[in-house]
Order: sequence, then C-alpha cells, then structure tokens
Amino acid sequence: MEMLRDDGRRAEGLRPVSFERGVSRYAEGSALVSWGHTRVLCAASVEDKVPPFLRGSGSGWVTAEYSMLPRATHQRSPREISKGRPNARSSEIQRLIGRSLRAAVELPKLGERTITIDCDVLQADGGTRTASISAGFIALFDALRWLRKNEKLPSIPLKNQIAAVSVGKVAGEVMLDLCYEEDSAAEVDANLVMTGGGEFIELQGTGEGGSFSYAELAQIVEFGWSGIAEIQKMQRDALELDEAERELFKKCE
Amino acid sequence: MEMLRDDGRRAEGLRPVSFERGVSRYAEGSALVSWGHTRVLCAASVEDKVPPFLRGSGSGWVTAEYSMLPRATHQRSPREISKGRPNARSSEIQRLIGRSLRAAVELPKLGERTITIDCDVLQADGGTRTASISAGFIALFDALRWLRKNEKLPSIPLKNQIAAVSVGKVAGEVMLDLCYEEDSAAEVDANLVMTGGGEFIELQGTGEGGSFSYAELAQIVEFGWSGIAEIQKMQRDALELDEAERELFKKCE
Amino acid sequence: MEMLRDDGRRAEGLRPVSFERGVSRYAEGSALVSWGHTRVLCAASVEDKVPPFLRGSGSGWVTAEYSMLPRATHQRSPREISKGRPNARSSEIQRLIGRSLRAAVELPKLGERTITIDCDVLQADGGTRTASISAGFIALFDALRWLRKNEKLPSIPLKNQIAAVSVGKVAGEVMLDLCYEEDSAAEVDANLVMTGGGEFIELQGTGEGGSFSYAELAQIVEFGWSGIAEIQKMQRDALELDEAERELFKKCE
Amino acid sequence: MEMLRDDGRRAEGLRPVSFERGVSRYAEGSALVSWGHTRVLCAASVEDKVPPFLRGSGSGWVTAEYSMLPRATHQRSPREISKGRPNARSSEIQRLIGRSLRAAVELPKLGERTITIDCDVLQADGGTRTASISAGFIALFDALRWLRKNEKLPSIPLKNQIAAVSVGKVAGEVMLDLCYEEDSAAEVDANLVMTGGGEFIELQGTGEGGSFSYAELAQIVEFGWSGIAEIQKMQRDALELDEAERELFKKCE
Amino acid sequence: MEMLRDDGRRAEGLRPVSFERGVSRYAEGSALVSWGHTRVLCAASVEDKVPPFLRGSGSGWVTAEYSMLPRATHQRSPREISKGRPNARSSEIQRLIGRSLRAAVELPKLGERTITIDCDVLQADGGTRTASISAGFIALFDALRWLRKNEKLPSIPLKNQIAAVSVGKVAGEVMLDLCYEEDSAAEVDANLVMTGGGEFIELQGTGEGGSFSYAELAQIVEFGWSGIAEIQKMQRDALELDEAERELFKKCE
Amino acid sequence: MEMLRDDGRRAEGLRPVSFERGVSRYAEGSALVSWGHTRVLCAASVEDKVPPFLRGSGSGWVTAEYSMLPRATHQRSPREISKGRPNARSSEIQRLIGRSLRAAVELPKLGERTITIDCDVLQADGGTRTASISAGFIALFDALRWLRKNEKLPSIPLKNQIAAVSVGKVAGEVMLDLCYEEDSAAEVDANLVMTGGGEFIELQGTGEGGSFSYAELAQIVEFGWSGIAEIQKMQRDALELDEAERELFKKCE
Repeated sequence: MEMLRDDGRRAEGLRPVSFERGVSRYAEGSALVSWGHTRVLCAASVEDKVPPFLRGSGSGWVTAEYSMLPRATHQRSPREISKGRPNARSSEIQRLIGRSLRAAVELPKLGERTITIDCDVLQADGGTRTASISAGFIALFDALRWLRKNEKLPSIPLKNQIAAVSVGKVAGEVMLDLCYEEDSAAEVDANLVMTGGGEFIELQGTGEGGSFSYAELAQIVEFGWSGIAEIQKMQRDALELDEAERELFKKCE
Repeated sequence: MEMLRDDGRRAEGLRPVSFERGVSRYAEGSALVSWGHTRVLCAASVEDKVPPFLRGSGSGWVTAEYSMLPRATHQRSPREISKGRPNARSSEIQRLIGRSLRAAVELPKLGERTITIDCDVLQADGGTRTASISAGFIALFDALRWLRKNEKLPSIPLKNQIAAVSVGKVAGEVMLDLCYEEDSAAEVDANLVMTGGGEFIELQGTGEGGSFSYAELAQIVEFGWSGIAEIQKMQRDALELDEAERELFKKCE
Repeated sequence: MEMLRDDGRRAEGLRPVSFERGVSRYAEGSALVSWGHTRVLCAASVEDKVPPFLRGSGSGWVTAEYSMLPRATHQRSPREISKGRPNARSSEIQRLIGRSLRAAVELPKLGERTITIDCDVLQADGGTRTASISAGFIALFDALRWLRKNEKLPSIPLKNQIAAVSVGKVAGEVMLDLCYEEDSAAEVDANLVMTGGGEFIELQGTGEGGSFSYAELAQIVEFGWSGIAEIQKMQRDALELDEAERELFKKCE
Repeated sequence: MEMLRDDGRRAEGLRPVSFERGVSRYAEGSALVSWGHTRVLCAASVEDKVPPFLRGSGSGWVTAEYSMLPRATHQRSPREISKGRPNARSSEIQRLIGRSLRAAVELPKLGERTITIDCDVLQADGGTRTASISAGFIALFDALRWLRKNEKLPSIPLKNQIAAVSVGKVAGEVMLDLCYEEDSAAEVDANLVMTGGGEFIELQGTGEGGSFSYAELAQIVEFGWSGIAEIQKMQRDALELDEAERELFKKCE
Repeated sequence: MEMLRDDGRRAEGLRPVSFERGVSRYAEGSALVSWGHTRVLCAASVEDKVPPFLRGSGSGWVTAEYSMLPRATHQRSPREISKGRPNARSSEIQRLIGRSLRAAVELPKLGERTITIDCDVLQADGGTRTASISAGFIALFDALRWLRKNEKLPSIPLKNQIAAVSVGKVAGEVMLDLCYEEDSAAEVDANLVMTGGGEFIELQGTGEGGSFSYAELAQIVEFGWSGIAEIQKMQRDALELDEAERELFKKCE
Repeated sequence: MEMLRDDGRRAEGLRPVSFERGVSRYAEGSALVSWGHTRVLCAASVEDKVPPFLRGSGSGWVTAEYSMLPRATHQRSPREISKGRPNARSSEIQRLIGRSLRAAVELPKLGERTITIDCDVLQADGGTRTASISAGFIALFDALRWLRKNEKLPSIPLKNQIAAVSVGKVAGEVMLDLCYEEDSAAEVDANLVMTGGGEFIELQGTGEGGSFSYAELAQIVEFGWSGIAEIQKMQRDALELDEAERELFKKCE
C-alpha cells in the first residue's frame, strides 16, 4: 500500500497552487503565486534597451532576477547588500530562471527591448525556483500582451509555454514537488523546466549526499512531466486566453 | 471653498489605510499595510544576539531594514546588490525606522535580544517610510507578545505606541499624507513620528526647492498629529488588544 | 538662577566660531571653520558636468560629500574604504548638506555645472554637520564669485544665505549648540537649517531615548533661529561682501 | 555514412585527455589535465578548519573554487577582482565542482578538516567544468593519501570515484565532449557527473536556444556514461593505485 | 653658471619646511607639516591590539594609512569609497610609510599595542609620501612619549630617527625635493628614507619614461642624504627634546 | 673561505632559470618561466583600446596584472575576490611590472593599442615579481612581433630590453636571487630592473627589520647587474632573434 506524505499527498501529487495576475500596479505584467506555503511575487518590466552584445541586432532579451526577503525563511537571513556581495545560490537560480523564460519568446521578434522578470520570494517552503519560473511565465506573457496592445509589436512573439516543477528522492522514493522539510531530507533534488510540447528546456538533477540511477531518472522525468502539464493547464486558465491566444499556445507545442 | 485633491481628499485627509497581521508564516510578528496604493510587508524577527556595544549589558536592541522591490515603482530601479553598494536613501530611511521603533520598547527589559523589523516595499505610491513605521509597530508588538507567550519575557516591555505620517506643502498649501504625484510636486516634505501621548519622536521637514515658515510648521504639526492619532486608533484595532494590553497602551500615553 | 553649562555658556549661547577663507590653494572656494573644538575643512570644486537627469537642461547642480578623518574623534574609527562600504551616518549627513546648500543657489542660472562641496572633519566635538553647512556656504559663495570673476557667469546666482545650528534637550533643558559630551547625554537632538529670511530649509528633530513636546519644539526653534542669525552675520563678515553683494544678500531675505 | 567532426572525431569520441599528477610542490594533492586544448590546474589543500555549521560535528568538508586566467580564452576577460564582484558563471561552476567532489568522500570519516580543490583554467577550449571535476578527483585522492600517509587518518575515506564529461546536441546530433566551437553552436549543452558504479551525482541539461526530447536525453546519457567510464579508467591509471586502493575503488562501485 | 629652479632654489635645495605638533586634540601624537605648498596632517593613535600574527608574542606593531582629500589636488579626485575600492597608489604609499616608521621603533619593547599613523594630505604639491614619513615620525615619537608618560612603558623604545625626501632627474639634472610641476616633468623619481646614522631604510628609484645610470644614482643619494639630514635637524627641533631624549637620539645613530 | 648557500650556490649565483615561449594558444605572446621553484605564466594580450588619457593621442599603452594562484604558496591564501578587495601587495607588484615593461616599448609608435601582460604565479619560491618582469618581456616582445607580422605595425617599436632580479642581505651578507627561505630571513630586500645598456629602470631596496649602507648598496647593484646581464642573454636566446632583431637589441643598449 502506498505511503502518504506528511500533508497527505501521494508521491506524484502537487501541493495546492494558485496564480493571481495583475498584482503590481506599475509592472507591465505580474503574478503572485501561492504554491503550498511558498509565495513568490513576479513582476515583468519592459525597457527599451538591450545588453551590449545585442545592440544594433534588432533582437530583444529576457532576463530574470531572484531574491528572497530576509524573513521568507524559518530563520532570518541577512540581505545580500548587507554582506556586500551577491548570494551565489541566488545568482545561480536567477540564471536558471532567465534561461528558462528566454525559451518562451522569439527574441528576434521582440525588437531591441529587454523584459526583466523580478522574482521576489515573500515566503519560502521549497520549490521557489520552479514557482518563479511558472509564475514568471504568466508575468512575461502579460508583458508581451501589453506590448501588442500598445502597438509596440504586431503580434505576440510566443515561442514556448514554459513551466517547471521540482522532483526529489526522499528515503529512497521519488516524489513530486518537495516542500521544505522533504527537500531538507532529500537524497536527490531535481528541477525540470519543460515546454507545452513536453520537451526539456532544463533538467537539473543533483545527488545531495546520494546518487540516482537511470531508472530513477526515468521516474523523475515521468513525475515531473505530469506535474508540469498540470501547471501549464493552470497557467492557461489564469491567463484567460482568448481564442487567438489559445491557437498560439497550441502551435507552440 | 476648499479645493479637493486629485483623489477627492481634503487637505487634512488620509488615504484609505488597512493593516493585515500575521502575513508571514515564520516571522514572530508581521503586518502588511495598504496605504493608498502603497504596500509594505513588515516582518519582525527575534534573535538571541545584540550588537557588540550591548553585549553583557542585559539590554536588548530594535533595528530595522528597508528596501524596495525593483518594480515597486513606476520605473524599474536596479537592486542595491547589482550596484554593489547600499542605496543612500534606503540607508537613511532604515535608520529613521529603527530609531522610531526603538522608542516603542523598554530596551533594558527586552533582555539580550535583537528584534529586526524588515520593511519591504511591494508597491510605492508615496509615504513608504511612514507606512513602514506604522506597520512595523504592529509587527513589533506581535513579536513582543510572542516573547511573553513563549515565556521568554514576564510582560510586554512597551514604552510608546508609535505611528507616523507624512505632511507636505504643495502649491503653497499644507496637505496630509502625500501620494507619489503630490510628493513629486511638493515644495516641502515632512515626516512626523509621534507617541500615543502626542509627543514627537522624530520630526523631519525638508524644503525641496522651497522653504517653510514657522506658521507653516505649526500647520504641518497640526495635520500630522491628527493623522497620527487616526492611524494609532487603527493600529490598536488591528492588534485586537485584550483588556490588559489596552491598559498598557493607556499607561504609555 | 540659570544653570551654566560645563564651559560656562548659557543655554542659548554658541561656542566660539570662526571662519578662515581661502585655505585651499586649488579649490575654487574654501573655508576652514573652528566651532568650539570642531574643525571642518570645506572645499568647493566647480566641474563642467552634471548628473544624468540634468544633461541638456541648462541647469546646474550642487552636491556635497562629508567624511571624518579617522582620528577626528576620541577613539580612532576605521576609514570607510577599509570597511569597503560607505558609512550610513556619513551618507545621511552628506545628503543633508547637499540639500541645504542646493537651496542657496538658483540652479537654472548656474549653467550645466556641478559644484561639489567636500566637507572633511579634521576634529569632531559635536555639531559637525551644521558646521559643514555653515562653512560650506562660504566655500560655495566663493566658488560662485570665481565663476563670475572668470566670466563664466554674468552674475552670482544666489538664492538664499544658508546657515545651520544644532539644538538639543539635555537633562530636560533645551540648549543651543551641543558639544560632544552634551550631545552624548541629550534626550533630543535637533538640526536646523535656515535662510537669511528665517525660513526653514531643513528641520530635523530626533528623540534619542526621549521625546519632545510641541512647546519644546517652539523653544528649539527660537534658540535655533537666534544662533543661525548670529552665524549668518559671521558668514557675511568672513565673506567681506562688497556693496553689490550686500544688496544681493538683502534681496534674498 | 557517419559525419566526422572538425577534428575527425566520431560523435561519441573523446578528445585526447591526459593527467599529470604532483605538479604543485606545496599542495597536498595536485593534477594538471590536458583535455583537447583545455588545460586546468587543480590543487587540493588540506586545512584544519570547517565551515561554522560543522564545528564540533567531527565531520569534514570538501569544497572547490574555480577561476579562469584572463587570457585562457580567445579574447582576454577582465579578472573578477577588477570588476569587484564574483563572476556568476564561475560561482555556479565552483558550486557544481564542490558538490560533485563532496560525493567522493565519506565526510564524517574525514575529521574536522576542509579540503579545498582550486581549479584554475590555464587554457579554455570547452569542457572546463568537467575537466576540473575529473582532475579535481585526482588531486583530492592524493590529498586523502597524504592524510593517511601522515597518519592523520587511519584509512582513505573514499566513497565514490567521480568523473564528468559534457555532451551536447549540435545541428540536431548528439555529440560527446564538445570543444569551444561546437559548444558555441550547440542547441543543447549537458554536463554529467557519475560514480564508478554508473550512478548520477549531477545531470544538468540546458536547451540553449533549443530543447531536447526524452529520446535525446537517453542518448545524452548513453554517450556520457561511455565517456565517463573511459575517463575513470584514465584516472585510475594516473593514480597508480596499489592493490589495496584498487580494492577500495571496486568497493565503491 | 648654475640654473636656478622656478622658485629660485638650487638643485640641492629644499623647499621651506615646518612642523606643527599637537594639532589634534584627541590623538596620542600629531603633526601638521607644511612642505612647500604640500600639507599633511599626521595623527598617531595607540590601540591595545595587534594583528593576528603578533597575538601572544608580546611584541607591538606600527602601521600607517594614507589618503588625500578630494580637493588636495589641482583637479578634484573622487574619494576611494565612491569608487568602492582602495586606490592602488594610496595602498602602495601607505605600505611604504608603514614600513619606514616601523623601522623607528623597537617593536618587541612596545608591548601588544598598535600605533597607527594616519596621514591625510590636505594639499598636495609633490613629495606627499616623504612629507608623511617625516611628519609621521614626529607624531609617532609623541605617541611613544605619551606611553611612557602614562606609565604604560618604562622607556621610549626608539630604534631609529626616520626622515625621507624625494629626489628627481628633470631635464637631465638631478634635483632635490621636486614640487608637483617638476615631478610631472621628471624622467626619474626617487624616494629615500634614511636613519639618523645615514643608513637606508628604503630607496625607491623609478625611471618614468627615462632611466638612470649608476653615477646618477650616486648623486641622487648624495642630494637625498643632505636633505634628510636637514629634515632630521628640524624634527629634533620641533620635538623639543630634553637631555635624555637627545641622548637617545644620539645612541640610535 | 666563501660560505655556500643551502642549495650550494655562491652569493652571486642565480638559480636555474628557463623560459618556455608560446605556452598559450590564444595570447599574442606568452612565456612560462621556471626560476628555481618559482613558476610564472605570462600572457600578452593586444587590444585596440587605450586608457582615457591617451584617447586620440595616437600613442599606445603597456600594462600588467599580477596574481598568485591560491596554492602557489606553502599555505593556501584566499583569492582576492573572496576577500572582495584587491590585495595591496599584488597591486603594488603589478604597478611595478607595468612601469618596467612600459620602458621596453616606444609607446608613441605602438598606435592606439594596449598590451596587457598577465602574470599569474603558478608556484612561488621567491622572486616572483622579477621573474614576471623578465618573462613578461619575452611575452611582450612576441606580441610586438605578432603586430608586425600581421602588418599592424611597420616595425617593432622596441625601446629597451628589460630584465630584473632580486638581491638581498641575509645574515649580513649580500646575495643574488633569494629563494623563499632566504627572503624570509633577509634584513634587506632589493629588486632591480635594468636595460640592456645597464641603466636602471627601477631600483627598490627595503630594509625589512634592518638597514643598508651606501657600500652595501654598491654591492647590491654589482650583483644585480651581473644577474640581469645573464638573464638578458637567456631572454635573447629564448626569443631566437633573427639578424635584424639582433641589431635592434644592440641599438637599444
């Protein structure tokens, strides 16, 4: 008989997830995600500038920044600025979010613009990077809509629907969507970022004090894709797609 | 006939203000304030350590940190860490918040503990520092309650109820509680921090391209105290004081 | 009978103050102030550049920097650079000095130039920020003279004569111009910056472990304005104004 | 007929790899790896201290630092220190190397010691992180031998033999061990870190402008494991294992 | 016939030099030197701590810090802290001053104390590092006197009288004590630090766009020693040595 | 009878020195020097840009950077970036190397280009700065050859052949080319940089806990020039000069 997890979930179950759009009065797109007790505020900002290597190329850029409020966690952590240097974990995560969300957009059709997705973790209970990617996609899509609505772009340059989940191995068993306690005890921690068509954009599996076999990798991928498909459905619902946008999403798969 | 302000307020009117307590699952005290469109998340963290100059003194410390999310504002601002140095305006504000909230607590009765109030501005439409102080007081009081409830302190070492408002002079007229547009156009910008008894903890008036007379100062103080008294009533309501606490607050006046 | 202070001053008395102009061979204006044992060297530098937000506006800028020599104080303090980050107190003070001295100049008539007032505290015995503002005004005025004399400006774009003093409440009594020992013991510490016409540019009152009433504020203002008027007289004497300049100062009141 | 790569390799072929041990006169273990034109100098340093979270635990730590000489690359890159902040890519890589090499050691048997593996890239032609891990393992093992030989440890606390390779998808084809030119053109870039027993310690696959299917993942893993097994053979040869050590390696599989 | 320099000096002539002692109210020793138009304020601070490598050794330390006020020079230079990093020239100079003044003291007899000599350049017209060393010696000696007078040391642990001058080669001619204009045009720039007995503590000669022969080195040394002997006489006069101290200085030669 | 040194050398003997050219696949010039156990990798990079003060002048620039690998030394030293600030010793050394190598080139004939010599110490056993200068000259000359060969310059703008050695006084005896143990025990430490014609570019002598007389200076210079002449011969051999280049070197003397 299957063991249930502390919160009563089955191994392949997601925690309750909800997206609230338009939470920032000023940002071109924004979403607040509640994913179990994890809460991340994602704001998409459009700016008419690109990094040096793209100047004059006509192409745009998508990037992300990630940070945790000091008391997002059980114990207060000092702010990065009070240590005077970027937190290496945060840098690594924001690079992952940036790469993942860049895969959502046809950059050459974006024009010489940068969309920055700020992901600020208000409360952290595991899975903050995958929550950031999944909610960041919503903020990003609303920013693309804003660009079209304000006639800065003729159409929405969507390339892929992007969502992400974490999967782990805890006490020898593969489980979807670890909360903080599970994550702390996990032997293996994996993050999957996938397109609407079920292709990988990123797959990162780490043995934290353990290792994993090819068979376990297969199960991680199976659980991950099932969770991601569920999240992608919620993203589309939250976005209240019109007919044309629904077509656009289908074409991307 | 009196001119109304853009949002229909009279000169001495506050914007709609509400406090939500307990918004952080992990902090010992927390409050989210909505003050017009300004939104600040305040979290109070209790730690068993004090700055070097208090070690061995038996006395405690209260301090604050203040930061704005990059897209709290109309235009995105870079994070402090990406500039590699603290923002001077933020440093100045967090010193003000810290001084103000220290005045709320009998530090020698706190024991060798530090309570840090993190004030993170989710959305900024003027008055973020006074909103931080006013909501920070609520988070701080809940942290003091937590200390008593967990039997780390025999009683709540409250010294003063603390609240704050901004007052400005716009187009020659003194006005309470400026929003961002009013603040941008103000000749004079003042911030008042006062106790439940109507004494000043801080009074900062700045002529931004203008100056102010003693008569105008008197009106600034009058408007300020009227606004602060209103906020203090809301603080007490939000805190759902029991009988003993109500007494405690009265004694502080 | 009135209590005298440690150095024999009455409550509303200033310490001996003197200004020495032209102490820097290279700066466009400079002044060394001795204010009791406090000594600050102020140098005004004219540069043909403005901050980004003024480029192309035709308008100029006035800014200030403030720093203490490591052994200006009783105990040696490490240099800011050896801690790798700006001192928050210094940042706050230099922002105050900058705002105060900007109020002295018609910036749109300055042309696209920046005047930087460097205030370096050689010895600190209380009141360094108000001494910096008062001596900084002299250095600034001499730099404006230099601009006119070198035919870079048709006239001196003076807007206000600016001076500053500190006032505090010590052992329940309001006193003008605190020295370090008095400042350390003060319950309330206030800094006033005023124009020749007796209007406020800045008023900052802080309850350091205490609070102050409206009646005390009135007395703080009274003592402050009396001290500032005295300092402004000394500034005019030190500047050795000619007839036209004397007129200019009068018009500013 | 199979297409050969620019240097004549087949898709699943490694570049010429060689390890030189003992290149540092002072380090407790060291190895210089030549991997195609990539050259990394790895030095293992033993220090009698551990990070704060391990103090008093009796357990040890393994960590890594990674840096490139400024002219390791086609174009000179500024040093991290001249930019004043750590390079985010370097931070991410050194965290990967550290996690990977920690998996090689029974940390509780190491005693309260830290072994730091410094990986300095003298010349970079793709695959520097996997070369660092593979050569870092050799330096680390020699440092463990040094500890036993100097009677600081009763036996060598080896947990896993660790090696790593990169695999990529270039022009739609999966290829082992990309050189710089191939890497620049790759749609997918993966790094695999595996044990002697063929289990994963780390698997990182990134779609750089592309994505990858589950079938492609399978091929990436197949090529990767074949390359890693070859490298592990070279590591054992380079280490000149005695009989007991050979046993130890076998037990780890 | 000998060519005179711009200010009428002969090649081997010093500029007018004067030392003012006791200029800092708080420092244990201090001296302000005027050397031509160069002005440096040196303050010696005694602290009861030593760098880690001396803890428990019973021996003391002497160190120096050097900085220029922003407008000490013809053009304003940004403060080190506003660039966020130490100025390399300043670091180099303060290391030189520190080494030079350490040679003045019997460190093992100083006890576990550090004497820090802060050298802040108020005005710079060439020769600031040699002026700092020469005036720093006076501040240092007064700090040693303070230690004896306060019965922290049984006697003054003087090892050497230390003074310094610059010598340069300008337009092919060797000259003592270059001012800024001469220094800017110099082909060779040398700094000599010598004891009362005429031995070298430091000799630094640099070809700035030129080179120098052994014969020129001999002349540099001859001019340098003659200047240093003159400065050492002024140091002794400024210090107002009593009989015992005069003996002490003689013994050091 | 003459005492031999630990490694059997006479007082005026060099350690075994060898230069390997072309060790970097990408740099325009490079050399690896082995000097006793000291090993430095020097890479010369040509870039089409100059520092601000040379823009538009038509003249070029030569500069150097110096760093040690963390485990180049007996004990591991933290990287500069992990301390967040440049190492003062490294800054000083790289300024010396830069000045020395600038003396090798007719900068006005270089065109608006910068040649940066990166000197990375792989292993440190004393004399790393003089080894860097001596090997840096070889890398620099090869970069100049590259510029001529690629028709960016009509001829090689050599001004001086530059080499350097250290000389010290150990236990009262002057010795050429100190190794780390000798250097640690030295009373005097000197570094000499000289041209092919035997003129000084730099001469730095430091009494480390001792002092030196004029007679000792003369011996330091004698030993130094003899060592430098030997190194210059090795540089010319390593460079495999053709007939025209041999002439060029002679003309520089």
